[in-house]
Amino acid sequence: MQFPSRLIEHAVEEISKLPGIGKKTALRLVLHLLKNDVSVSESLASSISSLRKNIKYCQRCHNISDGPLCAICSNPRRSHNIICVVEDLPDVLAIENTGQYHGSYHVLGGIISPIDGVGPDDLNISSLVNRVAQAEFPIEEIILALSPTMEGDTTAFYLTKKLQPYNLKISSIARGVPIGGELEYADEITLGNSILRRRNYESEH
Amino acid sequence: MQFPSRLIEHAVEEISKLPGIGKKTALRLVLHLLKNDVSVSESLASSISSLRKNIKYCQRCHNISDGPLCAICSNPRRSHNIICVVEDLPDVLAIENTGQYHGSYHVLGGIISPIDGVGPDDLNISSLVNRVAQAEFPIEEIILALSPTMEGDTTAFYLTKKLQPYNLKISSIARGVPIGGELEYADEITLGNSILRRRNYESEH
Repeated sequence: MQFPSRLIEHAVEEISKLPGIGKKTALRLVLHLLKNDVSVSESLASSISSLRKNIKYCQRCHNISDGPLCAICSNPRRSHNIICVVEDLPDVLAIENTGQYHGSYHVLGGIISPIDGVGPDDLNISSLVNRVAQAEFPIEEIILALSPTMEGDTTAFYLTKKLQPYNLKISSIARGVPIGGELEYADEITLGNSILRRRNYESEH
Repeated sequence: MQFPSRLIEHAVEEISKLPGIGKKTALRLVLHLLKNDVSVSESLASSISSLRKNIKYCQRCHNISDGPLCAICSNPRRSHNIICVVEDLPDVLAIENTGQYHGSYHVLGGIISPIDGVGPDDLNISSLVNRVAQAEFPIEEIILALSPTMEGDTTAFYLTKKLQPYNLKISSIARGVPIGGELEYADEITLGNSILRRRNYESEH
Protein backbone atom coordinates (compact mmCIF):
# COMPACT_ATOMS: atom_id res chain seq x y z
CA MET A 1 0.00 0.00 0.00
CA GLN A 2 1.31 3.44 -0.90
CA PHE A 3 0.70 6.48 1.27
CA PRO A 4 0.58 10.13 0.20
CA SER A 5 2.55 11.23 3.25
CA ARG A 6 5.65 9.95 5.00
CA LEU A 7 4.13 10.86 8.36
CA ILE A 8 1.21 8.52 7.70
CA GLU A 9 3.49 5.80 6.36
CA HIS A 10 5.67 6.03 9.45
CA ALA A 11 2.73 6.02 11.87
CA VAL A 12 1.11 3.05 10.11
CA GLU A 13 4.40 1.18 10.24
CA GLU A 14 4.83 1.82 13.96
CA ILE A 15 1.24 1.00 14.91
CA SER A 16 1.19 -2.20 12.84
CA LYS A 17 4.17 -3.47 14.84
CA LEU A 18 1.77 -4.00 17.76
CA PRO A 19 0.49 -7.58 18.13
CA GLY A 20 -2.76 -8.30 16.31
CA ILE A 21 -2.79 -5.02 14.40
CA GLY A 22 -2.20 -5.16 10.65
CA LYS A 23 -1.61 -2.38 8.15
CA LYS A 24 -5.30 -1.90 7.37
CA THR A 25 -6.27 -1.55 11.03
CA ALA A 26 -3.29 0.73 11.61
CA LEU A 27 -4.42 2.97 8.75
CA ARG A 28 -7.94 3.08 10.21
CA LEU A 29 -6.52 4.19 13.55
CA VAL A 30 -4.31 6.80 11.86
CA LEU A 31 -7.29 8.25 9.97
CA HIS A 32 -9.25 8.31 13.23
CA LEU A 33 -6.45 10.29 14.89
CA LEU A 34 -6.27 12.70 11.95
CA LYS A 35 -10.01 13.38 12.15
CA ASN A 36 -9.83 14.17 15.84
CA ASP A 37 -8.35 17.06 17.71
CA VAL A 38 -4.60 17.27 18.16
CA SER A 39 -5.06 16.80 21.92
CA VAL A 40 -6.34 13.24 21.36
CA SER A 41 -3.12 12.23 19.60
CA GLU A 42 -1.02 14.11 22.11
CA SER A 43 -2.51 12.44 25.18
CA LEU A 44 -2.31 9.02 23.52
CA ALA A 45 1.33 9.57 22.60
CA SER A 46 2.29 10.92 26.02
CA SER A 47 0.55 8.08 27.86
CA ILE A 48 2.44 5.51 25.77
CA SER A 49 5.72 7.31 26.20
CA SER A 50 5.47 7.84 29.95
CA LEU A 51 4.15 4.30 30.49
CA ARG A 52 7.36 2.58 29.49
CA LYS A 53 9.67 5.31 30.71
CA ASN A 54 8.26 5.83 34.19
CA ILE A 55 7.05 2.36 35.10
CA LYS A 56 8.61 0.95 38.26
CA TYR A 57 8.61 -2.49 39.83
CA CYS A 58 7.64 -3.07 43.44
CA GLN A 59 10.75 -3.73 45.54
CA ARG A 60 8.93 -6.37 47.55
CA CYS A 61 6.74 -8.34 45.12
CA HIS A 62 8.04 -7.23 41.65
CA ASN A 63 4.55 -6.21 40.63
CA ILE A 64 4.29 -3.15 38.41
CA SER A 65 4.11 -0.03 40.52
CA ASP A 66 4.17 3.76 40.49
CA GLY A 67 6.48 3.97 43.53
CA PRO A 68 8.96 1.81 45.46
CA LEU A 69 6.11 -0.33 46.85
CA CYS A 70 3.08 -1.32 44.77
CA ALA A 71 -0.50 -0.44 45.69
CA ILE A 72 -1.09 -3.95 47.06
CA CYS A 73 2.09 -4.19 49.16
CA SER A 74 1.52 -0.74 50.65
CA ASN A 75 -2.15 -1.38 51.42
CA PRO A 76 -2.53 -2.02 55.19
CA ARG A 77 -5.89 -3.73 54.67
CA ARG A 78 -4.37 -6.61 52.69
CA SER A 79 -3.15 -9.71 54.53
CA HIS A 80 0.60 -9.59 54.21
CA ASN A 81 1.10 -13.00 55.82
CA ILE A 82 -0.25 -14.71 52.70
CA ILE A 83 1.70 -14.56 49.45
CA CYS A 84 0.23 -15.59 46.13
CA VAL A 85 3.02 -16.54 43.72
CA VAL A 86 2.26 -15.83 40.07
CA GLU A 87 4.14 -15.95 36.80
CA ASP A 88 3.56 -12.43 35.53
CA LEU A 89 1.54 -9.22 35.75
CA PRO A 90 -1.56 -10.37 33.79
CA ASP A 91 -2.02 -13.09 36.41
CA VAL A 92 -2.10 -10.49 39.20
CA LEU A 93 -4.71 -8.52 37.25
CA ALA A 94 -6.77 -11.66 36.62
CA ILE A 95 -6.75 -12.71 40.30
CA GLU A 96 -7.45 -9.14 41.49
CA ASN A 97 -10.48 -9.03 39.21
CA THR A 98 -12.02 -12.08 40.90
CA GLY A 99 -12.22 -10.11 44.18
CA GLN A 100 -11.59 -13.38 46.04
CA TYR A 101 -8.07 -12.74 47.22
CA HIS A 102 -6.95 -10.21 49.83
CA GLY A 103 -3.36 -11.17 50.47
CA SER A 104 -0.16 -10.06 48.80
CA TYR A 105 1.59 -11.28 45.66
CA HIS A 106 4.98 -12.30 44.41
CA VAL A 107 5.59 -11.96 40.68
CA LEU A 108 8.20 -14.46 39.45
CA GLY A 109 8.64 -12.71 36.10
CA GLY A 110 8.40 -15.99 34.23
CA ILE A 111 8.34 -19.71 34.77
CA ILE A 112 11.03 -22.39 34.87
CA SER A 113 11.29 -23.65 31.30
CA PRO A 114 14.46 -25.50 30.28
CA ILE A 115 13.34 -25.50 26.64
CA ASP A 116 13.28 -21.69 26.59
CA GLY A 117 16.46 -21.54 28.65
CA VAL A 118 14.71 -20.08 31.69
CA GLY A 119 16.20 -21.42 34.92
CA PRO A 120 15.40 -20.65 38.58
CA ASP A 121 18.09 -17.95 38.68
CA ASP A 122 16.34 -15.97 35.92
CA LEU A 123 13.23 -15.60 38.08
CA ASN A 124 12.44 -13.67 41.28
CA ILE A 125 12.73 -16.83 43.39
CA SER A 126 15.59 -15.91 45.73
CA SER A 127 13.79 -12.66 46.59
CA LEU A 128 10.71 -14.75 47.51
CA VAL A 129 12.80 -16.98 49.80
CA ASN A 130 14.39 -13.88 51.37
CA ARG A 131 10.97 -12.37 51.81
CA VAL A 132 9.80 -15.49 53.68
CA ALA A 133 13.00 -15.71 55.75
CA GLN A 134 13.15 -12.05 56.74
CA ALA A 135 9.44 -11.30 57.08
CA GLU A 136 8.50 -8.81 59.81
CA PHE A 137 5.36 -10.80 60.53
CA PRO A 138 5.79 -14.49 59.77
CA ILE A 139 4.38 -15.63 56.43
CA GLU A 140 1.68 -18.20 57.08
CA GLU A 141 0.82 -19.40 53.65
CA ILE A 142 2.19 -19.43 50.13
CA ILE A 143 -0.39 -19.94 47.39
CA LEU A 144 1.08 -21.13 44.11
CA ALA A 145 -1.08 -19.70 41.32
CA LEU A 146 0.92 -21.00 38.39
CA SER A 147 -0.31 -22.08 34.99
CA PRO A 148 -1.46 -25.75 35.00
CA THR A 149 1.25 -26.79 32.56
CA MET A 150 4.41 -28.85 32.84
CA GLU A 151 6.45 -25.69 33.32
CA GLY A 152 4.08 -24.50 36.04
CA ASP A 153 4.33 -27.85 37.84
CA THR A 154 8.13 -27.81 37.56
CA THR A 155 8.24 -24.32 39.04
CA ALA A 156 5.80 -25.32 41.81
CA PHE A 157 7.95 -28.35 42.66
CA TYR A 158 11.10 -26.23 42.79
CA LEU A 159 9.42 -23.61 44.98
CA THR A 160 8.07 -26.14 47.51
CA LYS A 161 11.59 -27.60 47.83
CA LYS A 162 13.04 -24.12 48.44
CA LEU A 163 10.33 -23.09 50.90
CA GLN A 164 10.14 -26.37 52.87
CA PRO A 165 12.66 -25.25 55.59
CA TYR A 166 10.42 -22.35 56.64
CA ASN A 167 7.60 -24.46 58.01
CA LEU A 168 4.67 -22.77 56.30
CA LYS A 169 1.56 -23.90 54.53
CA ILE A 170 2.06 -24.20 50.79
CA SER A 171 -1.07 -24.50 48.71
CA SER A 172 -1.90 -24.53 45.04
CA ILE A 173 -4.96 -23.06 43.38
CA ALA A 174 -7.55 -25.74 42.73
CA ARG A 175 -7.44 -27.44 39.39
CA GLY A 176 -10.72 -25.95 38.33
CA VAL A 177 -8.84 -24.06 35.70
CA PRO A 178 -8.70 -25.98 32.43
CA ILE A 179 -5.42 -27.86 32.15
CA GLY A 180 -3.26 -26.72 29.27
CA GLY A 181 -4.79 -23.24 29.26
CA GLU A 182 -3.12 -19.95 30.03
CA LEU A 183 -3.99 -18.47 33.42
CA GLU A 184 -4.71 -14.97 32.16
CA TYR A 185 -7.48 -16.26 29.90
CA ALA A 186 -9.39 -18.22 32.57
CA ASP A 187 -12.85 -16.83 33.36
CA GLU A 188 -13.29 -14.97 36.64
CA ILE A 189 -15.67 -17.46 38.30
CA THR A 190 -13.44 -20.46 37.66
CA LEU A 191 -10.38 -18.55 38.75
CA GLY A 192 -12.09 -17.15 41.86
CA ASN A 193 -13.31 -20.61 42.83
CA SER A 194 -9.89 -22.08 42.34
CA ILE A 195 -8.54 -19.66 44.93
CA LEU A 196 -11.31 -20.41 47.47
CA ARG A 197 -10.89 -24.17 47.03
CA ARG A 198 -7.13 -24.25 47.18
CA ARG A 199 -5.67 -27.46 48.56
CA ASN A 200 -2.61 -28.20 50.68
CA TYR A 201 0.23 -29.01 48.40
CA GLU A 202 1.17 -32.29 50.20
CA SER A 203 -2.31 -33.77 49.98
CA GLU A 204 -2.19 -33.72 46.21
CA HIS A 205 1.12 -35.53 45.94
CA MET B 1 -10.90 -3.84 35.72
CA GLN B 2 -8.47 -2.50 38.34
CA PHE B 3 -4.84 -1.82 37.56
CA PRO B 4 -1.88 -1.80 39.95
CA SER B 5 -0.45 1.33 38.36
CA ARG B 6 -1.92 4.64 37.30
CA LEU B 7 0.43 4.68 34.30
CA ILE B 8 -1.06 1.43 33.04
CA GLU B 9 -4.59 2.57 33.79
CA HIS B 10 -4.02 5.81 31.90
CA ALA B 11 -2.42 4.09 28.90
CA VAL B 12 -5.19 1.48 28.72
CA GLU B 13 -7.79 4.25 28.88
CA GLU B 14 -6.15 6.24 26.09
CA ILE B 15 -5.56 3.24 23.81
CA SER B 16 -9.08 1.90 24.30
CA LYS B 17 -10.45 5.22 23.02
CA LEU B 18 -9.32 4.14 19.54
CA PRO B 19 -12.08 2.64 17.38
CA GLY B 20 -12.40 -1.15 17.60
CA ILE B 21 -10.03 -1.48 20.56
CA GLY B 22 -11.51 -2.51 23.90
CA LYS B 23 -9.96 -2.54 27.36
CA LYS B 24 -8.69 -6.13 27.07
CA THR B 25 -6.97 -5.49 23.75
CA ALA B 26 -5.57 -2.22 25.11
CA LEU B 27 -4.14 -4.07 28.11
CA ARG B 28 -2.57 -6.66 25.79
CA LEU B 29 -0.90 -3.87 23.82
CA VAL B 30 0.27 -2.18 27.03
CA LEU B 31 1.83 -5.42 28.30
CA HIS B 32 3.48 -5.88 24.91
CA LEU B 33 5.01 -2.41 25.17
CA LEU B 34 6.18 -3.07 28.73
CA LYS B 35 7.92 -6.29 27.67
CA ASN B 36 9.77 -4.54 24.86
CA ASP B 37 12.57 -2.03 24.86
CA VAL B 38 11.84 1.59 25.77
CA SER B 39 12.75 2.60 22.18
CA VAL B 40 9.72 0.70 20.83
CA SER B 41 7.32 2.79 22.94
CA GLU B 42 9.24 5.96 22.21
CA SER B 43 9.13 5.62 18.43
CA LEU B 44 5.45 4.63 18.53
CA ALA B 45 4.62 7.65 20.69
CA SER B 46 6.66 10.08 18.61
CA SER B 47 5.17 8.84 15.33
CA ILE B 48 1.64 9.34 16.70
CA SER B 49 2.48 12.74 18.12
CA SER B 50 4.21 14.11 15.01
CA LEU B 51 1.55 12.62 12.72
CA ARG B 52 -1.23 14.88 13.92
CA LYS B 53 0.98 17.86 14.73
CA ASN B 54 2.92 18.05 11.46
CA ILE B 55 0.39 16.83 8.92
CA LYS B 56 -0.42 19.27 6.14
CA TYR B 57 -3.13 19.38 3.53
CA CYS B 58 -2.34 19.91 -0.14
CA GLN B 59 -3.24 23.48 -1.13
CA ARG B 60 -4.57 22.29 -4.47
CA CYS B 61 -6.46 19.03 -3.85
CA HIS B 62 -6.80 18.89 -0.02
CA ASN B 63 -5.16 15.48 0.04
CA ILE B 64 -2.91 14.81 3.01
CA SER B 65 0.61 15.98 2.31
CA ASP B 66 4.04 16.58 3.81
CA GLY B 67 4.46 19.94 2.02
CA PRO B 68 2.34 22.65 0.40
CA LEU B 69 1.57 20.38 -2.58
CA CYS B 70 0.93 16.64 -2.19
CA ALA B 71 3.01 13.94 -3.88
CA ILE B 72 0.36 13.47 -6.58
CA CYS B 73 -0.17 17.19 -7.39
CA SER B 74 3.57 17.81 -7.57
CA ASN B 75 4.26 14.74 -9.73
CA PRO B 76 4.85 15.91 -13.36
CA ARG B 77 4.08 12.45 -14.72
CA ARG B 78 0.44 12.55 -13.58
CA SER B 79 -2.23 13.97 -15.91
CA HIS B 80 -3.28 17.21 -14.27
CA ASN B 81 -6.10 17.84 -16.75
CA ILE B 82 -8.18 15.06 -15.19
CA ILE B 83 -9.54 15.44 -11.66
CA CYS B 84 -11.04 12.56 -9.69
CA VAL B 85 -13.37 13.91 -6.99
CA VAL B 86 -13.53 11.76 -3.84
CA GLU B 87 -15.10 12.04 -0.44
CA ASP B 88 -12.07 11.47 1.77
CA LEU B 89 -8.50 10.23 2.06
CA PRO B 90 -9.23 6.46 2.23
CA ASP B 91 -10.86 6.76 -1.21
CA VAL B 92 -7.66 8.26 -2.64
CA LEU B 93 -5.69 5.38 -1.16
CA ALA B 94 -8.16 2.81 -2.52
CA ILE B 95 -8.06 4.26 -6.05
CA GLU B 96 -4.26 4.63 -5.97
CA ASN B 97 -3.96 0.97 -5.02
CA THR B 98 -5.82 -0.10 -8.16
CA GLY B 99 -2.98 1.39 -10.26
CA GLN B 100 -5.59 2.26 -12.92
CA TYR B 101 -5.70 6.03 -12.46
CA HIS B 102 -2.96 8.48 -13.37
CA GLY B 103 -4.71 11.83 -13.03
CA SER B 104 -5.05 14.15 -10.05
CA TYR B 105 -7.57 14.21 -7.20
CA HIS B 106 -9.82 16.56 -5.32
CA VAL B 107 -10.73 15.59 -1.76
CA LEU B 108 -14.09 17.03 -0.71
CA GLY B 109 -13.56 16.24 2.96
CA GLY B 110 -17.06 14.78 3.29
CA ILE B 111 -20.31 14.44 1.43
CA ILE B 112 -23.49 16.53 1.30
CA SER B 113 -25.74 15.10 3.99
CA PRO B 114 -28.61 17.26 5.31
CA ILE B 115 -29.35 14.70 8.05
CA ASP B 116 -25.84 15.14 9.48
CA GLY B 117 -25.97 18.88 8.89
CA VAL B 118 -23.28 18.81 6.19
CA GLY B 119 -24.00 21.33 3.43
CA PRO B 120 -22.02 22.29 0.30
CA ASP B 121 -20.25 25.10 2.16
CA ASP B 122 -18.73 22.65 4.63
CA LEU B 123 -16.92 20.82 1.82
CA ASN B 124 -14.03 21.75 -0.49
CA ILE B 125 -16.41 22.46 -3.38
CA SER B 126 -15.68 26.15 -4.05
CA SER B 127 -11.97 25.34 -4.24
CA LEU B 128 -12.77 22.69 -6.86
CA VAL B 129 -14.74 25.21 -8.92
CA ASN B 130 -11.90 27.75 -8.57
CA ARG B 131 -9.43 25.08 -9.61
CA VAL B 132 -11.42 24.37 -12.76
CA ALA B 133 -11.95 28.10 -13.52
CA GLN B 134 -8.34 29.16 -12.96
CA ALA B 135 -6.49 26.09 -14.26
CA GLU B 136 -3.18 26.78 -16.04
CA PHE B 137 -3.93 23.97 -18.49
CA PRO B 138 -7.65 23.50 -19.05
CA ILE B 139 -9.27 20.66 -17.10
CA GLU B 140 -10.69 18.15 -19.57
CA GLU B 141 -12.54 15.72 -17.35
CA ILE B 142 -13.96 15.46 -13.85
CA ILE B 143 -14.51 11.92 -12.60
CA LEU B 144 -16.94 11.70 -9.70
CA ALA B 145 -15.85 8.76 -7.53
CA LEU B 146 -18.46 9.14 -4.79
CA SER B 147 -20.18 6.47 -2.74
CA PRO B 148 -23.22 4.94 -4.51
CA THR B 149 -25.59 6.22 -1.81
CA MET B 150 -28.25 8.91 -1.69
CA GLU B 151 -25.75 11.36 -0.20
CA GLY B 152 -23.24 10.52 -2.94
CA ASP B 153 -25.87 11.08 -5.62
CA THR B 154 -26.93 14.39 -4.05
CA THR B 155 -23.31 15.57 -3.98
CA ALA B 156 -22.77 14.43 -7.58
CA PHE B 157 -25.90 16.31 -8.68
CA TYR B 158 -24.76 19.49 -6.91
CA LEU B 159 -21.27 19.24 -8.42
CA THR B 160 -22.52 18.74 -12.00
CA LYS B 161 -24.71 21.84 -11.59
CA LYS B 162 -21.76 23.87 -10.30
CA LEU B 163 -19.37 22.65 -13.00
CA GLN B 164 -21.75 22.87 -15.97
CA PRO B 165 -20.64 26.43 -17.02
CA TYR B 166 -17.05 25.26 -17.64
CA ASN B 167 -17.82 22.99 -20.59
CA LEU B 168 -15.95 19.88 -19.52
CA LYS B 169 -16.64 16.16 -19.49
CA ILE B 170 -18.13 15.00 -16.20
CA SER B 171 -18.17 11.24 -15.62
CA SER B 172 -18.97 8.92 -12.75
CA ILE B 173 -17.25 5.65 -11.87
CA ALA B 174 -19.18 2.64 -13.27
CA ARG B 175 -21.80 1.05 -11.06
CA GLY B 176 -22.74 -2.59 -11.44
CA VAL B 177 -22.11 -6.04 -10.05
CA PRO B 178 -18.70 -6.33 -8.38
CA ILE B 179 -16.15 -8.39 -10.32
CA GLY B 180 -15.61 -11.80 -8.72
CA GLY B 181 -18.97 -11.71 -6.94
CA GLU B 182 -21.77 -14.23 -7.46
CA LEU B 183 -24.57 -12.78 -9.54
CA GLU B 184 -27.29 -14.36 -7.38
CA TYR B 185 -26.04 -12.54 -4.29
CA ALA B 186 -26.00 -9.08 -5.87
CA ASP B 187 -28.75 -6.84 -4.49
CA GLU B 188 -31.77 -6.10 -6.69
CA ILE B 189 -31.06 -2.40 -7.19
CA THR B 190 -27.45 -2.98 -8.27
CA LEU B 191 -28.42 -5.85 -10.55
CA GLY B 192 -31.37 -3.94 -12.03
CA ASN B 193 -29.14 -0.93 -12.64
CA SER B 194 -26.44 -3.04 -14.23
CA ILE B 195 -29.00 -4.33 -16.75
CA LEU B 196 -30.31 -0.85 -17.55
CA ARG B 197 -26.78 0.52 -17.93
CA ARG B 198 -25.43 -2.44 -19.90
CA ARG B 199 -22.57 -1.76 -22.27
CA ASN B 200 -21.81 -3.14 -25.71
CA TYR B 201 -19.43 -6.06 -25.37
CA GLU B 202 -16.97 -4.79 -27.98
CA SER B 203 -16.52 -1.38 -26.38
CA GLU B 204 -15.11 -2.96 -23.22
CA HIS B 205 -12.48 -5.08 -24.92
